[in-house]
Amino acid sequence: MSLFGADTHTLDDLFVHGLKTIYYAERQIVETLPKMIDMATNLELKAGFEQHLRETENQRRRLEQVFEMHGTTADETTCPAIDGILKAANGTASDIDDKQVLDAALAFGAQMVEHYEIAQYGTLIAWARELGRTDCARILGETLDEEKATDAKLSDLAEARVNRAAELQRA
Amino acid sequence: MSLFGADTHTLDDLFVHGLKTIYYAERQIVETLPKMIDMATNLELKAGFEQHLRETENQRRRLEQVFEMHGTTADETTCPAIDGILKAANGTASDIDDKQVLDAALAFGAQMVEHYEIAQYGTLIAWARELGRTDCARILGETLDEEKATDAKLSDLAEARVNRAAELQRA
Repeated sequence: MSLFGADTHTLDDLFVHGLKTIYYAERQIVETLPKMIDMATNLELKAGFEQHLRETENQRRRLEQVFEMHGTTADETTCPAIDGILKAANGTASDIDDKQVLDAALAFGAQMVEHYEIAQYGTLIAWARELGRTDCARILGETLDEEKATDAKLSDLAEARVNRAAELQRA
Repeated sequence: MSLFGADTHTLDDLFVHGLKTIYYAERQIVETLPKMIDMATNLELKAGFEQHLRETENQRRRLEQVFEMHGTTADETTCPAIDGILKAANGTASDIDDKQVLDAALAFGAQMVEHYEIAQYGTLIAWARELGRTDCARILGETLDEEKATDAKLSDLAEARVNRAAELQRA
């Protein structure tokens, strides 16, 4: 099992494999978010996940744009990292009975996903620049900015509301 | 498979399960880094991984300190997220023949690990504060600062050297 394929010889190959990996990951995230929306109780958290779902669908379209700019057919490569993260983030449902504690756990799972995406897009942008593909870097940069904004919003929400509610519940 | 156990009812339970998860993850990272050090060619990247290995060993000791402060026996809980990330990061060895391109891929893998840790420690610190455990938050904060510094160093190194070398190799 590997992150890249057997035909990875140049930085450009690495860039294309990275695009395919995150293209796969975004689809996995699109499929997982509705389950997280269903599980969430806190209305702001639920709304945040709904916004993230819309953004993720748009991020997949941006990736298709980058594939086209690059002259490569849009395709997916499975990524054990996002599979593991979503398995962990999504596996809380059957184990946590308290709604507020479940919300805190869901917000944490979403932040793990965000940081995975921040690492992926940050690296892809650096590689695109090195390859002289500032056009691709610009499009990918729009997504990175969204991911960072979502992460900051999740942090604020988690700290200010979800965790506080869970702690009150415990008291 | 789940991130938390069946006995997760309160935010404090969530905090303890989070500690056990990252305690497991740090051990996996300690076991994986020597392979990444062996694979890396760029001397600065190799030195960076060596420094990260020493820091990670120390971070495990800090977690033991937090377990003790909390009055809980230090223990591990498996985490499919870090397992998946390390599988992806470590799986490049057999696929990439070019040394500079392999370095770029290794640096990317290390950044995925850093962002996983940043998400984990960031959340644990927020939960510790909510629980009134500023003593635990302070110790965990020392590790978070190290992780962020390592991530920034990897970004600089990747952008300035590893990627440039890979691109020159291609030209």
